This record gives sequence, structure tokens and C-alpha cells, in this order.
Amino acid sequence: MPEYKVPMRDTQFVLYELLKGEAHYEKLGASDATRDMIDAILTEGAKFCEQVLSPLHQAGDQGCTFKDGEVTTPPGFKEAYAQYVEGGWPSLSASEEFGGQGLPESIATVFSEFVSTANWSWGMYPGLSHGAKHTIDKFGTDEQKETYLTKLISGEWTGTMCLTEPHCGSDLGILKSKAEPNEDGSYAITGTKIFISAGEHDMAENIVHIVLARLPDAPEGTKGISLFIVPKFLPDGTRNVTCGSIEHKMGIHGNSTAVLNFDASKGFLIGPPNKGLNCMFTFMNLARLGSAMQGVAAAEQSFQGALTYAKDRLAMRSLSGPKAPDKPADPIIVHPDVRRMLMTQKAIAEGGRAMIYYCSMLGDTIHRSQDEAEIKQAEDLLSLLTPIAKAFLTETGYEATNLGMQVFGGHGYIAEWGMEQIVRDTRIATIYEGTTGIQSLDLLGRKVLMSQGELLRNFTKIIHKFCQAEADNADMKEFAEPLAARNKEWGDVTMQIGMKAMQDREEVGAASVDYLMYSGYITLAYFWASMAKTALAALAAGTSEQDFYKAKLATAKFYFQRILPRAEGHKGAMLNGAETLMALDPEHFAFL
Amino acid sequence: MPEYKVPMRDTQFVLYELLKGEAHYEKLGASDATRDMIDAILTEGAKFCEQVLSPLHQAGDQGCTFKDGEVTTPPGFKEAYAQYVEGGWPSLSASEEFGGQGLPESIATVFSEFVSTANWSWGMYPGLSHGAKHTIDKFGTDEQKETYLTKLISGEWTGTMCLTEPHCGSDLGILKSKAEPNEDGSYAITGTKIFISAGEHDMAENIVHIVLARLPDAPEGTKGISLFIVPKFLPDGTRNVTCGSIEHKMGIHGNSTAVLNFDASKGFLIGPPNKGLNCMFTFMNLARLGSAMQGVAAAEQSFQGALTYAKDRLAMRSLSGPKAPDKPADPIIVHPDVRRMLMTQKAIAEGGRAMIYYCSMLGDTIHRSQDEAEIKQAEDLLSLLTPIAKAFLTETGYEATNLGMQVFGGHGYIAEWGMEQIVRDTRIATIYEGTTGIQSLDLLGRKVLMSQGELLRNFTKIIHKFCQAEADNADMKEFAEPLAARNKEWGDVTMQIGMKAMQDREEVGAASVDYLMYSGYITLAYFWASMAKTALAALAAGTSEQDFYKAKLATAKFYFQRILPRAEGHKGAMLNGAETLMALDPEHFAFL
Repeated sequence: MPEYKVPMRDTQFVLYELLKGEAHYEKLGASDATRDMIDAILTEGAKFCEQVLSPLHQAGDQGCTFKDGEVTTPPGFKEAYAQYVEGGWPSLSASEEFGGQGLPESIATVFSEFVSTANWSWGMYPGLSHGAKHTIDKFGTDEQKETYLTKLISGEWTGTMCLTEPHCGSDLGILKSKAEPNEDGSYAITGTKIFISAGEHDMAENIVHIVLARLPDAPEGTKGISLFIVPKFLPDGTRNVTCGSIEHKMGIHGNSTAVLNFDASKGFLIGPPNKGLNCMFTFMNLARLGSAMQGVAAAEQSFQGALTYAKDRLAMRSLSGPKAPDKPADPIIVHPDVRRMLMTQKAIAEGGRAMIYYCSMLGDTIHRSQDEAEIKQAEDLLSLLTPIAKAFLTETGYEATNLGMQVFGGHGYIAEWGMEQIVRDTRIATIYEGTTGIQSLDLLGRKVLMSQGELLRNFTKIIHKFCQAEADNADMKEFAEPLAARNKEWGDVTMQIGMKAMQDREEVGAASVDYLMYSGYITLAYFWASMAKTALAALAAGTSEQDFYKAKLATAKFYFQRILPRAEGHKGAMLNGAETLMALDPEHFAFL
Repeated sequence: MPEYKVPMRDTQFVLYELLKGEAHYEKLGASDATRDMIDAILTEGAKFCEQVLSPLHQAGDQGCTFKDGEVTTPPGFKEAYAQYVEGGWPSLSASEEFGGQGLPESIATVFSEFVSTANWSWGMYPGLSHGAKHTIDKFGTDEQKETYLTKLISGEWTGTMCLTEPHCGSDLGILKSKAEPNEDGSYAITGTKIFISAGEHDMAENIVHIVLARLPDAPEGTKGISLFIVPKFLPDGTRNVTCGSIEHKMGIHGNSTAVLNFDASKGFLIGPPNKGLNCMFTFMNLARLGSAMQGVAAAEQSFQGALTYAKDRLAMRSLSGPKAPDKPADPIIVHPDVRRMLMTQKAIAEGGRAMIYYCSMLGDTIHRSQDEAEIKQAEDLLSLLTPIAKAFLTETGYEATNLGMQVFGGHGYIAEWGMEQIVRDTRIATIYEGTTGIQSLDLLGRKVLMSQGELLRNFTKIIHKFCQAEADNADMKEFAEPLAARNKEWGDVTMQIGMKAMQDREEVGAASVDYLMYSGYITLAYFWASMAKTALAALAAGTSEQDFYKAKLATAKFYFQRILPRAEGHKGAMLNGAETLMALDPEHFAFL
């Protein structure tokens, strides 16, 4: 199993040098968030992730056990959670009013990357609490906050979001769970919810479920869904929600995926009736960034494993002459194709890290800025970048895990090396929290086209200015020129698709996934060009860390030369339109 | 679990209409192989695969058990194998001299596709015998043939190829197993072999291992490897080879992957000393096509599952208006992106089928033709196409399995639906029998560049002639024009890479995998253009099967419009060369 080391130097590069985190926090009035403070927190957090969570990762693959309605998590999970609560980690960025430490969300995001990479399945237990916390923080009554939020922030309780039912996942409009009013003002919730991650476990005293259900008089479709707080145990200790079973699944075995049965379970309305989906959308972006993180975390974890192996494993001689003449063969890292795989993983992990931290800092601005124009700009940008980050980083993160396994050859397929577990664990990331298809419709349909391209122009303007500013910088030419060209093209092809979509609405869905991937490659190019600029500046200033910045620059070059060309394939496919997709009658897909 | 139905109509389309199998078999003097005869065999074979093997597939995922050196295969596997032997299936294409039925190899290949799709893990047990059969058939003494070949052909015994050792897989030059002469002319084989598929099981009385080992005076490297027949049980019943354990792996759990211990095990030299690798190369192409089949089989199986689900599962309304207004939502097959996924699977499965059957018929020609020029031409073509088929079809086949899972959304991740098992089972296909990286070096380095481009020109000439012949056919324009352009470009970019490789040998490895994928997309475009031509001809002739041929034509259009553009991305990446891959010192890949 690859031993996880927190990439602290790279984290600092992104946080302080690329994204100028110190100035960002100061501007937002987060005066506690000094570099010394942040470094101290992250160093402590790194220890916990490396020493406590990472060693539990592989054994966690043995899975949870379900017996008589109770779930037992893998050995060590519960104890690690106690340490996590003890260390105050759940409350890092929570509001001080309810016991939190009040740090900016983006600092918690950095820590959550460490947790995610060390042990994704474990990290889902506290991670799933976010949705419940946000819902109660934003829409709860004072009493609901007092009862539930403080416990969620301290970590004594965990939370879930209960959306999916057996017959509906992406299409929540057809959900059936019912909420009947009780005499005491509460509601009796009845229905079955499936795929509830962290829905039942033994790590905390209580679980606060936020459940989507319909009031008796609710309109049909998405406009008739309300939110309810439904605790596993009521204040008097009564069991209120039961777990019917947990799923046997491809990966993330350490996390329980529960079937929850609500049988007139007592629930409490939160937020306005029938506005449940609207309420959820207010923090959907942040939840989706949480899933995007799985792609980055998986790429990093798999990269670390593959790199160690590639330096160690001997096979064949380098085509340009032996590199380890004293050994029976050269380490496989000498071979160009092994390097191609490693560099691809590295470019995804480091580039994705930059993308997610950037998004997370937009979140800080949204929550803390006093400047409405600045908030609007951050909201618009985050709104555009979220589906890109979620779908593109989980798709490429999954690719990275497959490459890491491939570096190991046959050994990659064997469980004991731990590389195939990363592939299995990561495969869900392109599905939950909105599939790649759903994210792509969100990006192209809802965000780009419904805003008449405005949300896209917000971002392409930033890229345009960046490229213009670097136009006279000879060292940046290899990045700024192709980026500027792609950036202009992005607008052009969007226009073309938009025109076609006015004739035929199927063109949106037909182009969507290729459009998202195309957009992702350009977005990541922007981050890599920015990182190249930062690295060049450090080198020009005579940094003592020559190797670090040169490696960063080399990775940027790799990305532009060897990865960005993929955009061309997606462009070609998406511009070829819907016709060949829509041609066949469903009965003519196969003649069996 | 998706229920497998043999795609008989498509099989017949490829075998008889596209590849003109009847004329092919007649020309080779295989007078038994009439269409009636073949259809009867395939119908019988389809029954066995649908009714016996397919129902065992999902339960097979529970895996083999290992106890006290013995492997027990999953329930039903042994009984199915007995039926298989009883039915005479192992001997379909084997030579009549040793009890075979003497049919052309390509007919056995078609049947093996059915087996592979119904139950890949099961199919590996008889499938692995091929290597042993070929080795003994070609290099064995009369006595060895009498003793081993007849039993392998009847299926009473199975066989393996024992290549890999713990420290070496791709690089057989460094293998260590030793063969010391015994006084009786046999050899004492000592060493450990790992990853031996079907290396130990309870399905047959005996297992004939073909083992690579070194004679005492052998030269170092690949020129000092000899082949030995090492049976699990010696004729007197003595246990001669022991199984140390079986691997816990990501998938193909129904097939045992054995660690075999040779402890002065009695072995018999087969073929000339120190020429073991050369001997193996004579049938390596066919073995690799066997693995290529896994990609096609997996794509087909996953496609069938996803198609059924997509017609059944309801979610959202079609963007162009409700398609099932009487239901709460439309079946997801109305959505363009779901169709994109299904069509991609279909294009890979049907296109890959054509590619493999074509290769397999080249094998028929090599084995049966009397015309030396024809044999040479077939050998050269097969030599070029084999690494493409192996790597491209397993990479795209794996993609297809991931798409099939994606169609299921969250349910795809759950074991009971069977879709994730296909992904796990298929992941090994890009690794064993030579990884994608190894195939790519074989294609670009050994086949294309070492032949000064001649092996490539052999094939591009065929494509060129095809496009020329269709130049005046307006209906074929949308296929012939882009294919002709890509075909010319294929030669041009090969030249460019060849020139660079003369300056720097690392350029070969740096371009190789992108070059292979690029070549694969063009090769598949040729087969799809050919299928379009065949379909157009049938439609022009007023076929009664309008829907079938129109669907074939629609899939060809889809391939050209939505899949072939990917070639552009690979071209861009490979032409950008080795520099960014080779830049980093191994110690500078990460700063942890």
C-alpha cells in the first residue's frame, strides 16, 4: 500500500504563492488566518492524516458489517474519529457562535484534501455532515441550531443528506417520500431512501438526516419538495430511523452506503415548505467541490504509489543506454511511457489542487466579503467552475488512478499493492453528487447558455487579461499563446453550439459532456500557465529552491504539450452535433 | 446481472457479408466449413454460452478458494467444463491427426467470442490451453504430441504458459528459473512463477505447464531461455508442481491466478535449447488476439446490460418534449448523452468484432494457404494489426465497460447489478499478454519503424485502394473522404516520428501509446467504412432487413462523427515529442 505523505510544499505553493492566500484572508478580515497559524494547523493536520488515517486505508477495504440494523465500521475507524473530534478538526471553519473556530472555508478545504487522500472512505463520515450543517445554519430556527448545529460542529453527531430513492436519483422531481403533519407541529416522514453515504455507523452518538419529502398538498415535480430534519435518535432516546441494509459495492467499502427506512419517523420542517430544492442549491456548489476533491486526492495518492514503484522496479534498459548499469535492468522510471503516465498523474493532481483551492477561495469571498460586486463576481465564477471541477477532475482523477495501476503492471491488479483499491474507490466520483452527464448539462445548459454566455465570459475575460499581460514575456510565450488561442476558440465554439441549440434542444445534451471536458482542459491550462508564471518569477528572483520551481515549470510544459491537445478531439466530436446520436429508434440499438 | 444474448445477426453480418467467410474457407480448402455447418455449430455454441456459462458469471465473482495447495473453482464451473468437453468444443479447430475437428481457427474464434462474453473468467481455463497446444503442436516430438497434445485437444487436460516471475514480467530477459539436466534426459526445473492464469484448478485431471527456464550454460538475457513441458502430475501420478497460493485481485475472481512452485520439478525440453522466446513468438500474435477479444466481449456484455437498463429506467423528460407522457418520466434512452454512451459501446463492440474476425481470418490464411506470397502478406498484416487490436480494443473495451456502468448511475456501482464486475474483470486486459505500453513499442518500434514503414504501408495501401474505389460513390463520401485523409496523414506522421527517432531513440517510447491509439482509431474507421459499404449495398439491393442495415449505417456515421475526432488529440500529443517527458530527474517528480 502506498504510504501517504502530505504534499506540503506543493500545498504552500498553491495557497501562498499562486493564490496569494495571506492577502486574500487579510482582505476578508480573517485576521486569525496568518501564515504561521495556517502552517501550524496544516502541520498538525498532516500528522493526523499520515499517522492515523492513512494506515487505516487499506484495511478499510474489508468493509463495514451490517447486523440487526446496526453498522460496524472497519477496525480503527471509530477510534480515529474520536481523535478527530478531540483535535477539534470538525469545527475548523464553522461559525464561532455555535462553537466553531471561524477560519475561512478554504483552510478547511486544504485540510480536507489531506484527509481525502489519506483515507477517502473514512473522510466521508465527517464530510457528509457538511450538507446538514449548511442547511441548518442557513435555514434552521434558533432552537434547531441550538439542538443540532452545535453537535454537528463539535463532531459529536454526524449528518447526511437523504435525497435518492430506489426509483429516482438525478430526477428528484419524481421522489415519493411523504411528510404528514403531526399534531405537535412535527411531521411523520414515510419512505425509503437509498445510497445514503454514512447513513448508518457506529462512530457518533447520533446522525442528523436532512430528508427530502413531500407535504400532503405539495405541487408535483421539483417545486413540491420540502426539507426535514430527521434525527436517528430523538431527544428522548427513541430510535427514529432504521437502516434496512448496506450496499455491496465496487469500492469505498469503508464507508457505509445505507438503505434508510422512514416509517412515520418524526421530522421537523426546515426552511420554507416546497422550497427544499432551492434551499439545497445554495450550498450545492460547495458539496460538489467536495466530490471534485476525490479526483485530486485519488490522483495524488495513486501518483505517490506509482512514483515509488517506478523508481524501484527494474525492467528493460533505457533505449538511450543503461541508466543503472550495475543492476540487472534499469528502474522503469527511465522509460518515456512510464514517465508519460506519471507526469499525467502529476499534472492532474497538482493542477486540480490549484483549481479546487481557487474555487474554495471564491467561497471565502462569497461568505465573508462586504463588497456586493465582489460577491456577485465570485458567485458567478464559482457557479461556472463548479460543474467543471466536479466532472473534469473526477474523470481525469479516475484516469490518473488507472494510470497508477498501469505503472505497476500485473502487480497493480493485485489487491495487496493497494493500487486497484484506489481505482475502485474513485470510480464512484463521476457518479454521485450529480453524474458527469448532469454536471455537463448544468454547465452548458443552465450556466453557459441560459446566461447568454455571460458566466463564461466572466472567466474567459480573466484568462484573456492574463494572456495579454504575458504577451511580451518571452518565457511565457509557450503558455500564453496557445492558451489565448484556446480561450478565444472556447467562446467561438460556445456560440456555434448555442446557435444550433436554438434550432434543436437536443444539441445541448449531445454536446454537453465533450463540451465539459473541452472546457476542463482549457481551465486546467489556465491554472498551469499561472503556475508557470509563478515558477518563472521565483526562478528569476534567484530562489534557492531551483529544483522545485523547475519541476513545476517542466510539468506546465508537459501539460501544454502532451495533455492540452486532447481538447481538439472533444471539440471535433461536440461540433459534429446530435444527429448521429438521435438517429436510432430505441428498438434498433441491437438485433439480438 | 445482464443476461447475455449472442449477437448472432451481427456475427453473421461480419463473418459472411463483410468478410465473405464462405469464399474464404472454400479458397483455403476447408470444404467442411459451409455456411450451414458453421451456423449449426454457432447455434449450438450460443445455447451453451447463454444457458450454461452466462448464468455462472456473476456467482463466479465470489472467487476461487485455496486450501492446502488445492484450488476449488466457483460452483458450477467444473460441471460446465465437463459439458464443454463432452460437447467437443475444445477440439473445434485442432488438427484432425490428434483428435481435432480441423475447422479453420476463425470459426473457433467466433465461438470463443461467445464464451468470452458469457463468462470471461470461465473461458480463461480452456483459453489458456492454446499456448500449450500451439507449442507442442509446433515444436513437440511425436511422443510429446501423443502424450500431451491429444489430452489438451480433447480437453481432458488444460495447459498454461509460465512466463512471469516475481521480479520480472515484461522483461523476460532477467528471468531466473533454472533447468538442470537429469540423468534420464529430463530436466529438474526450479523457480517460482507468478500470475499463472488457470495455473491450478479442479476442472481437469491434469495441467500441462509450458515453463520458461534457463539451462545451466545458457547465455544471459532473452537468448538464453528454453521451453519445458512440466505437467502438474507425472504419468505415474506423482505431484510434480505445487501451487503456493492464489492472488486476491481486482476482478476475474472466477479464474485462479496461481503462484506455482517448481522445486526440481521434472520437465521435458521442447523446441531447441535457448530459443524459447523465438518459439513463443510464432504464436504470440494469436495469443494476443485472445486478449484483444476481452475488450470486445466486455464492450458487448456491458452494452447489452446498459441498453436494457436505458430502455427501462425513467428519469427526466426529453428536452425535445415528453416521449412517454403516460409515465412519470421518460426512459433515459431518450437523452442524447445516454445515447452517446450506448453508441460508443456499440461502435467499439461491433467495430472490434470486425477487426478481430478479420485478424483471425488472416490466421486461417497463414495456417492453410498454399500460396507463399499470400501467406507472407497475411503474416505481415497480422503482425501489424495484432498490437493495435490487443491494446486499442482492450483500452476502448475498458472505456466501454465504464460507460455501461455510468448509464446505470449509482446502481452501476452496486455489485448486484453486475455492471461493476465487468469493469473490474476487464481492467486486467490492458496489462496481461503485454501491457498497452509494450504493445505500443511493438507496433511503433518493432513493426513500423524497424520495417522502414513497410508493414504499415501494407495496410495503408489496402485502405487507400478502398477509398479510391469508393471515390465516386456519393453515399460513401462521408466515410471515404475523411478515411483517405487520415490514412495519408498516418503515413506522414509516422515519417515525422521516424525522423525524430533517428536523432533520439526516446522519441519512440514517448510517442508510442498515443501513436497506437491514433492508429487504432484509423484502423477502426476502416472497418466501419467497410461495414457502411456493405450496409449500403444491402439497402440498395432492397433488403428486407432495412432496420438492421440502417442501424449499421447509423453506427458508422456515429463513429466517424463522434469518435474518430479523438485521433486528433493523440496526434497532437505524440507529435509534441519526448522532451517534456524526459525533462525531470527521477528525484524531482515530487517534493514530499
